[in-house]
Amino acid sequence: MGWGDLGAFGEPSKETPHLDQMAAEGMLFLDFYTANPLCSPSRAALLTGRLPVRNGFYTTNGHARNAYTPQDIVGGIPDSELLLPELLKKAGYTNKIIGKWHLGHQPQFHPLRHGFDEWFGSPNCHFGPYDNRERPNIPLYRDWEAFLEYYEDFKIDLKTGEANLTQLYLQEALDFISKQQASQQPFFLYWAIDATHAPVYASKQFLGTSQRGLYGDAVREIDDSVGKILKHLQQLGISENTFVFFTSDNGAALISAPKQGGSNGPFLCGKQTTFEGGMREPAIAWWPGHIPAGGVSHQLGNVMDLFSTSLSLAGLQPPSDRQIDGIDLLPVILQGKLIDRPIFYYRGNELMAVRAGLYKAHYWTWSNSWEEHSKGIDFCPGQNVAGVTTHTQEEHTYLPLLFHLGRDPGEKYPLSFASEEYQQAVEHITGLVQQHKDTLVPGQPQLNVCDQAVMNWSPPGCEKLGKCLKAPESDPKKCSWPH
Amino acid sequence: MGWGDLGAFGEPSKETPHLDQMAAEGMLFLDFYTANPLCSPSRAALLTGRLPVRNGFYTTNGHARNAYTPQDIVGGIPDSELLLPELLKKAGYTNKIIGKWHLGHQPQFHPLRHGFDEWFGSPNCHFGPYDNRERPNIPLYRDWEAFLEYYEDFKIDLKTGEANLTQLYLQEALDFISKQQASQQPFFLYWAIDATHAPVYASKQFLGTSQRGLYGDAVREIDDSVGKILKHLQQLGISENTFVFFTSDNGAALISAPKQGGSNGPFLCGKQTTFEGGMREPAIAWWPGHIPAGGVSHQLGNVMDLFSTSLSLAGLQPPSDRQIDGIDLLPVILQGKLIDRPIFYYRGNELMAVRAGLYKAHYWTWSNSWEEHSKGIDFCPGQNVAGVTTHTQEEHTYLPLLFHLGRDPGEKYPLSFASEEYQQAVEHITGLVQQHKDTLVPGQPQLNVCDQAVMNWSPPGCEKLGKCLKAPESDPKKCSWPH
Repeated sequence: MGWGDLGAFGEPSKETPHLDQMAAEGMLFLDFYTANPLCSPSRAALLTGRLPVRNGFYTTNGHARNAYTPQDIVGGIPDSELLLPELLKKAGYTNKIIGKWHLGHQPQFHPLRHGFDEWFGSPNCHFGPYDNRERPNIPLYRDWEAFLEYYEDFKIDLKTGEANLTQLYLQEALDFISKQQASQQPFFLYWAIDATHAPVYASKQFLGTSQRGLYGDAVREIDDSVGKILKHLQQLGISENTFVFFTSDNGAALISAPKQGGSNGPFLCGKQTTFEGGMREPAIAWWPGHIPAGGVSHQLGNVMDLFSTSLSLAGLQPPSDRQIDGIDLLPVILQGKLIDRPIFYYRGNELMAVRAGLYKAHYWTWSNSWEEHSKGIDFCPGQNVAGVTTHTQEEHTYLPLLFHLGRDPGEKYPLSFASEEYQQAVEHITGLVQQHKDTLVPGQPQLNVCDQAVMNWSPPGCEKLGKCLKAPESDPKKCSWPH
Repeated sequence: MGWGDLGAFGEPSKETPHLDQMAAEGMLFLDFYTANPLCSPSRAALLTGRLPVRNGFYTTNGHARNAYTPQDIVGGIPDSELLLPELLKKAGYTNKIIGKWHLGHQPQFHPLRHGFDEWFGSPNCHFGPYDNRERPNIPLYRDWEAFLEYYEDFKIDLKTGEANLTQLYLQEALDFISKQQASQQPFFLYWAIDATHAPVYASKQFLGTSQRGLYGDAVREIDDSVGKILKHLQQLGISENTFVFFTSDNGAALISAPKQGGSNGPFLCGKQTTFEGGMREPAIAWWPGHIPAGGVSHQLGNVMDLFSTSLSLAGLQPPSDRQIDGIDLLPVILQGKLIDRPIFYYRGNELMAVRAGLYKAHYWTWSNSWEEHSKGIDFCPGQNVAGVTTHTQEEHTYLPLLFHLGRDPGEKYPLSFASEEYQQAVEHITGLVQQHKDTLVPGQPQLNVCDQAVMNWSPPGCEKLGKCLKAPESDPKKCSWPH
């Protein structure tokens, strides 16, 4: 989902009344970012509070390549990483993930081995249908075991776009919250739905209800679901004890627009890129009785901050034996403070850009290759900013392209290299980059090796379902990451 | 000002708290349009309730050319047109225009000859400074007479952007409202400020206060002024008797961005074009006690509707002897109705595009000529949609380019000519166009002839100021309208 997909963020059809209401009752973050323009690294960063280049969710197979966890990926979240639910356990929290895990699907990466107590969802995206010879369908897990497979046991109609997955995820969330409230146990619910990811789907009751087509139907179903979750918290009388944060894992995928892709509002390009459209996210904090209604913050925030903020809410300290990139946003949310901190925009292990204050310096620009672009793969459809949306990897290390995001949120007008403003801003950002690079210890890259033998041939539980498939011979290869 | 310039419409710096509050207390129109992508024809349409091609505010000097009223224009609003203030007089209204008239500056076009009782403002844009040999500075009028001239008597600092013109216009508005309230007289105030038009300016107290630079300073000053006007109405106890509507006369001028131009949000191109960025406008209706707070409307609205709606509010009927294009929006505003009506996008006397429901058909596409574009005149900076943002005038009369503005607000993905959806929508729109053209009686074009003799050499009142200049010999020529 992109920054521009909610009514509160200027989507012209304004079809998200519940999220808009959540913002009206809580705090809207206008300058909130993901840690990566792609799903797996973004979700790994959220749960570890660390940049993907530290927690291992990146590749070194090519320069500045986005990578994720398809079902032939060998890697996943390393045991050495401390995940938010592992830490929250110390404070007595029950932790549940509902939705897409995406941090590796081999047994050692299972979410219940990394701090979660419950899981209802799938390890990978809902791609498919597959043929079970070349590749198996993606399983849906309940806790330790898979209990059905997409397209075989669970319908996702690619023609009509009908699937009631979000409804399943919603019901599971409501049930979990009820159970926790009944047992008076504190909980962390990571409602990590995979809508609006392509192939886009929505439940029958939402199909055809949006001005925006199927993608809008999916957004409306998310909006409705969030509304139901918030209402449930209120009806159970625990809304003043429950901190809720809504955001997305990357910008809208413009490549699949308009039917399967959304809006990044006035920002440049989309998912896969380190322009604002790829990484600036809609974000809303909600906590009645604590957050002043109708708040608006320009704090530079990041999904990694949810790690630190959640620990703070639970009265816990972040680990001191490693670099944590997230910051505690409670002073921002509760007292309206602004914390000075930069935003780092990575693609693979390359630092593409840095934002400090309203300035953003690009050290590398790339949308994707000419070769890919000529095949119609376009991360910036209809947008073309000369020297900015480049199709060759352009290095600007010694003379970064600098934009002022207040005057120029669309990254169209690089500042003059000769201006005093340029020199002052770049000098400041150069210092931040130096400091960042000096202390950076990259993690072991997890997204380099792919092997068809590790696919979901025989997920745990397959025996009960009678659905165990024989894996082919192991044949590890470098994964191919074209962009 | 553009659709995307207000916080309520998704501007990322969200610096318009008063206009956002006006929307929260009133009704936000998301699908509201101007009648022309340029100022003079748009303002003529607002005051007459008629398309520029009917009221004469267009040119036939070239095909599909935008035209306005520079100070060498010979034409202006014809006597045969009935303006909103002329009609409101019948219901006892006192009518005042504060700001830019722009409907012709020769004596016969003076606003006090066309229904206004009072005028504080100027006949043309605040371009300049001029040298009084090639062209005189633009005068500022109080009622019948000019009382000072921009740049000579009134400072507009083009270097710093400082000018307190909006403050003068604000004070004048507050005073007029107070006077009317004291005398218990109904009033129509047309607060037609010329900010944020380039050269952009703001008062000292607003300079440097916006994240967005000088343009944002100007927006903030407008926002603050609107807030003060609404508060004044409330303090005088007449807010429940006063209908207020906020909108703009054309999309943000991207040609002068980022310093002098604003944002059209997710829409394509800007001022001068018939893409959404050129003609979709921010729009808010406010009338406490009558309009339900927080309303949102998808009614296809137009500045010409303010003519019909105002007459309706005053209990008057629109003239029956001519075609009126505006519709009465009161059923929309007060009862939440949706009225089926198309939007016509003209450039000069060419019908470039038509919107019906969520479909928009382009019969002609053009941003501007290659010749102009190669000189850096760009109405769509950073945007380039193949076959859409064309630099030659492309005719699509027999096979219009069709967009679905719900799924594709940015006009990037024309529908397939072969699709059933295309055929049905185009058939419907073709009927509307036929009906429109069958009844269209174009007015005498007013914007064809320019003559340096008619410039503001000796505006009424110049004797008292000792500033009368001798006009050169009359030398009428075809005005040059390059785009």
